Amino acid sequence: MIQQMQKPVTQHEPLFIGVDGGGTKCKARLESSSGALLAEAVTGPANPATDFALAVDSILLACQQVVQQAGYTNAALAYCHVVMGLAGVNVPRVQSQMQNWSHPFASLTVTTDLHIACLGAHAGRDGAILITGTGTAAFSTVGNQQFLFSAQGFPLGDRSSGAWFGWQAVCATLDSLDGLTDETELTKTICRTLGVRSNTDLISCCIGYKATDYAQLAPLVLRYQQLADPHALDITRRGLDYIQALLKRLLKTAAPRIAMIGGLAPFLADLLPTDLQQQLSPVLGPPEVGAVALARQLFAEKAA
Amino acid sequence: MIQQMQKPVTQHEPLFIGVDGGGTKCKARLESSSGALLAEAVTGPANPATDFALAVDSILLACQQVVQQAGYTNAALAYCHVVMGLAGVNVPRVQSQMQNWSHPFASLTVTTDLHIACLGAHAGRDGAILITGTGTAAFSTVGNQQFLFSAQGFPLGDRSSGAWFGWQAVCATLDSLDGLTDETELTKTICRTLGVRSNTDLISCCIGYKATDYAQLAPLVLRYQQLADPHALDITRRGLDYIQALLKRLLKTAAPRIAMIGGLAPFLADLLPTDLQQQLSPVLGPPEVGAVALARQLFAEKAA
Repeated sequence: MIQQMQKPVTQHEPLFIGVDGGGTKCKARLESSSGALLAEAVTGPANPATDFALAVDSILLACQQVVQQAGYTNAALAYCHVVMGLAGVNVPRVQSQMQNWSHPFASLTVTTDLHIACLGAHAGRDGAILITGTGTAAFSTVGNQQFLFSAQGFPLGDRSSGAWFGWQAVCATLDSLDGLTDETELTKTICRTLGVRSNTDLISCCIGYKATDYAQLAPLVLRYQQLADPHALDITRRGLDYIQALLKRLLKTAAPRIAMIGGLAPFLADLLPTDLQQQLSPVLGPPEVGAVALARQLFAEKAA
Repeated sequence: MIQQMQKPVTQHEPLFIGVDGGGTKCKARLESSSGALLAEAVTGPANPATDFALAVDSILLACQQVVQQAGYTNAALAYCHVVMGLAGVNVPRVQSQMQNWSHPFASLTVTTDLHIACLGAHAGRDGAILITGTGTAAFSTVGNQQFLFSAQGFPLGDRSSGAWFGWQAVCATLDSLDGLTDETELTKTICRTLGVRSNTDLISCCIGYKATDYAQLAPLVLRYQQLADPHALDITRRGLDYIQALLKRLLKTAAPRIAMIGGLAPFLADLLPTDLQQQLSPVLGPPEVGAVALARQLFAEKAA
C-alpha cells in the first residue's frame, strides 16, 4: 500500500527522519532539508531482536506520525531519508530481516543504538560516549572508524552498570549474612527492601533475577556511598576503576569529545578524579538528533 | 513388590546403608551392625531436584545391589537403616516428594550432600568442610548445630569455584581484547581454546554458558598462575581472599577439624598462608562413609 504511493524524489524536497528504537519506546524526529525541526513522535517498543514485527510497526507508526504532524500525507515517506539506530541489529538474523524489509522510504540506513546516541551527544560529529544504564557500553566514532568496548551483557560483564551495582550489593549482603563481613546500613536495607532475613532467603529471592531486577537496587548503593557505608564505598570504588579504564581507552581513540550517558552517569562522573572529569563534555542532544544528522550527512555525501 | 517382602526387624540384625546421590552417579555402602563393610555399589544419576523418578530408581538399584552383593535378597532392605545425602533436598517440592516416597527400608533419613560429605571427611564426627568444585560451599556440623555458608550458585556467588575461575578468565580476556589491560599468555590461551579472535566473538561464544562450561577453563588459570601470569595471579589472589574468609568463618563455628574438598582444593590449599594451612585436616573418608556413620549413630540414639 505505502509503496504504491511512492513518488519520484524530484517532485518533493528531501525530508530527513531520525529514529531511536528501543525496548520500551520508539522516537522519531523529522527535519526539513534546511535542518529545521518539523515534528517529533513517540510510539511503542522497537527492539527488532525481541519482536521484529512489533518493532517495524512502531517504527512505521512513528514515521507516519511525524510526516502527518508536519502536514504531509503518508505519501511523503517516499521522500524521507531515514537513519534508525536500534539495539540488537548486530544479530545476524535481525540484519537479514532488516535487509528484506520493503520499507516505504527514499532511503534507509540502519545502525546501532550506540552509534546514534554518540552522534546525538556530539551534534553529529566525531566523539565518544560511555553509557552506564542498566548495562555498560563504550563507543567511539572518529573519521571512518568506530570502536566498541564493554557491552558484554549481564552477568558476563557490564561492570559498573546499574545491574552490576545492584548485584554487587546482593553479594555484599550475602557475605554479611554469612558472617564474613560486617552488616552495614546498606546490607540491612537490601534485606528490608527484598523482605529477606537469611542467606538462603536471599539466594532464593534472586533466583531468576535479571539485569533490570538487580538494577533497581543500584540507587541504594549510590545513596549509602554518600553516607560512607563501607560496602557501598567498596562497590563504588571497583565500579569507578572500570569506568576510568574505559574512559582512558576512549581517549586513546582520539575522540575529540567524550560524554557520559545513562542513569548512573551523573553520579559516577562526580566521583571521577578531577583530571578525568575535565576531559568530559556535555551531551549536546538525544539519539534521534544524532540519527537525523547522520541521515542528512549521508544524503549530502551521495549528492556530492 | 519390595514392600510386600518386608519382614519384622526383629527377625534380622539391623543393616546400615549410606547413600551419596549426585547429578552423575549414586553410591551406596552397606555395613553390618558391627560396622564391617559388606558391599559398595555405584549406579546412575540421583539428583531428585532434576529428575525425582530417576533419582529414586538409581537409589533403589544401588541399595538392592549392595544387599545382593552381601548375600541377601531384596527382602533384607526391610532391615536396612538408610541415610542418604542428596543435592537439592532443600527445595520444598523435593522435600514433599521425599516424604511421600513409600521406601522399602526399616528407616530412611534424608539430608544434604554437604552434610554427609562433612561427616565422611571427619569419620562421622564434628567438623567442617570447604568445597571448591564447580561450585563453592562451606559447611560445619558441631554438636546439634549445622552451619552453611556460600553455596549461592553461579553466577550469583560461588566465588573461587571452578566456574568462577573460568568466568574470571573470560572477563580478563574481554578486558585485554578491549585494550583495557595487557594481553597475557592466559588471555591468548583462552582465545585459542575457545577459537575466538575478538571481544564480540568471545561474548557470542559465552552466551548460554553454564557453570560447568566456565569450570572447564579453570585449569588454565591454575596453570598460568604457576607461571606468574599477571591476570591468573590477580584472579587467584581474589579467589584466595574469599577462601580465607570462609575458612576463618568455619573456624569460628568451633569445628574441631576443617578439611578442603573438591577439584580446586589441593591447588588452593597450597597457596594459603602457612598458619591457615596448618589448621587444615586431611579428608578421612568419602560422603557415603559419612552417611552410613550417621545411620548407625541415629539407630544407636533411638535404641538408647
